[in-house]
Amino acid sequence: MTSIYLDSGRVHLQQSARPERKPGEALIRLRMGGICNTDLELKRGYYGFRGIPGHEFVGEVVEADTPSWRGKRVVGEINLACHHCDWCARGLGRHCPNRTVLGIVNHPGAFAEYLTLPEINLLEVPDSMPDERAVFVEPLAAACEILEQVNIPAGSEVAVIGDGKLGLLIAQTLAIHGARVHQFGRHREKLKIAESAGVQGEVIKDHLPQLKYHWVVEATGSAQALADAISMVVPRGTVICKSTVHEKVSIDMAPVIVNEISLIGSRCGRFEPALELLASDRLHTQEMISARYPLEQGIAAFSHAERRGTLKVLLHP
Amino acid sequence: MTSIYLDSGRVHLQQSARPERKPGEALIRLRMGGICNTDLELKRGYYGFRGIPGHEFVGEVVEADTPSWRGKRVVGEINLACHHCDWCARGLGRHCPNRTVLGIVNHPGAFAEYLTLPEINLLEVPDSMPDERAVFVEPLAAACEILEQVNIPAGSEVAVIGDGKLGLLIAQTLAIHGARVHQFGRHREKLKIAESAGVQGEVIKDHLPQLKYHWVVEATGSAQALADAISMVVPRGTVICKSTVHEKVSIDMAPVIVNEISLIGSRCGRFEPALELLASDRLHTQEMISARYPLEQGIAAFSHAERRGTLKVLLHP
Repeated sequence: MTSIYLDSGRVHLQQSARPERKPGEALIRLRMGGICNTDLELKRGYYGFRGIPGHEFVGEVVEADTPSWRGKRVVGEINLACHHCDWCARGLGRHCPNRTVLGIVNHPGAFAEYLTLPEINLLEVPDSMPDERAVFVEPLAAACEILEQVNIPAGSEVAVIGDGKLGLLIAQTLAIHGARVHQFGRHREKLKIAESAGVQGEVIKDHLPQLKYHWVVEATGSAQALADAISMVVPRGTVICKSTVHEKVSIDMAPVIVNEISLIGSRCGRFEPALELLASDRLHTQEMISARYPLEQGIAAFSHAERRGTLKVLLHP
Repeated sequence: MTSIYLDSGRVHLQQSARPERKPGEALIRLRMGGICNTDLELKRGYYGFRGIPGHEFVGEVVEADTPSWRGKRVVGEINLACHHCDWCARGLGRHCPNRTVLGIVNHPGAFAEYLTLPEINLLEVPDSMPDERAVFVEPLAAACEILEQVNIPAGSEVAVIGDGKLGLLIAQTLAIHGARVHQFGRHREKLKIAESAGVQGEVIKDHLPQLKYHWVVEATGSAQALADAISMVVPRGTVICKSTVHEKVSIDMAPVIVNEISLIGSRCGRFEPALELLASDRLHTQEMISARYPLEQGIAAFSHAERRGTLKVLLHP
């Protein structure tokens, strides 16, 4: 089969055998994959990654222990948990210390004609939902995660910094939840996407509003924006940190302590609420697709995804 | 009257007139003051401070609009709030943007024979409580604040890093609350003080335990310990940050985000629960007193407080 392969900062195409499914796993044929910023960071050497990347996908089950899965169109939770530890017992397999992670940690990813994933990780995609919409479920789950971590009452003013892929999904998710969302970014045309879901977009000029919001989501993809986010919250406010960047960030903790601010790290979320949200009409994803490439043009697809201003680049077999 | 005066990094003694009390304020004669690390930082120029320091005190009301206050032995909330803004309306005068702060921001402090404070800030000290115990109410309120910010169920394991004045009060407060507290510090003899309140003290050798605690309180007084605290919490754990140090700290936010850790800044607290806790026998403060000086020896008192290993230095008229 054809797959994309990352090795020491380079993207290759390779031909290899289909992956073998272990007991309990399904063999899945790729229908659609999405390139995420994490994939671009993996290419740069984050986690010392070498292998097939890809964790945003929609596929069709080809083989599985449970016959009813065969032929089903599915998405899948990317953390392969051990199901034996305390974390798993608490329903937090996403934090299982023994986990592998699809296309990220010790499990070959989805940018290949075939992938494997435990049946327990799969969710069926409703017939009415096109692949190009369902493929957003994983990043959307990361947006929904915020609402599982903090209680944001409907009607609250929330700021989202960053107008990239994740920022746009977060701003829309929070607006649909009922928050009054102000999204701050550098691209008028990107901000317009979330505006159609009720978000108020603001192109960043000189200054961001200071000491204004009870909740600020930092989703710029740059660790440096944390200080901006801290300056925007009121005393006792909360900054939700979404930028997983592998560099140290220098911050002044004095305002965090004096103003009793909470900084909350936020990563992956459950797929169920995300799939439900995708099934509604209110979330705009179509406008977030910048390009589509066949797997065989994976190298070009990665180059395109790395270009400034690009939103989602999709891959298909 | 005699007072201590800080100016450009130096401690002086000065003679000046008694402060004039404004309407609503009480004139208070000092009975006992306590030197806090913040006072030492003020001396170093933090907040560009110049004036009479001191915010930990017990005093006797000499004059007040309300006659029943006269002659009462009191402690007092150090934030002088405006009582008109939204913060004040929510009972959070400690975050009032218009506030002045006793001995810290635009209100002369308690290291003087007389000070003023609004009557509304005062709490009467029970007759049975000696001055040397009541003088701990302000730092103890900062310890109690943690329990108002986060819900730590009784029986939970909590780590406290730091065995200074605040660390000892925090460790004891959390132990009395019912947590199983492990306190990490560098001084066997200091750790022993909290051990008598049920805390398990651990002298830091090479390594702190990694990924172990749901709650870690960072109270070392050094911003650099934040990274240690982050490394000690389990995924979804909480770090309570108590060190108000005016230097930038360089941290790797990746584990905060991947492990979905919360960092919560924590400062002053309400005096009521602290006064209640002092009224109980379980909290050990007597062993935390390193020295007592008359106000006239304020310069020596500050020198003593700055010496390594010193705990609370008290001042009296």
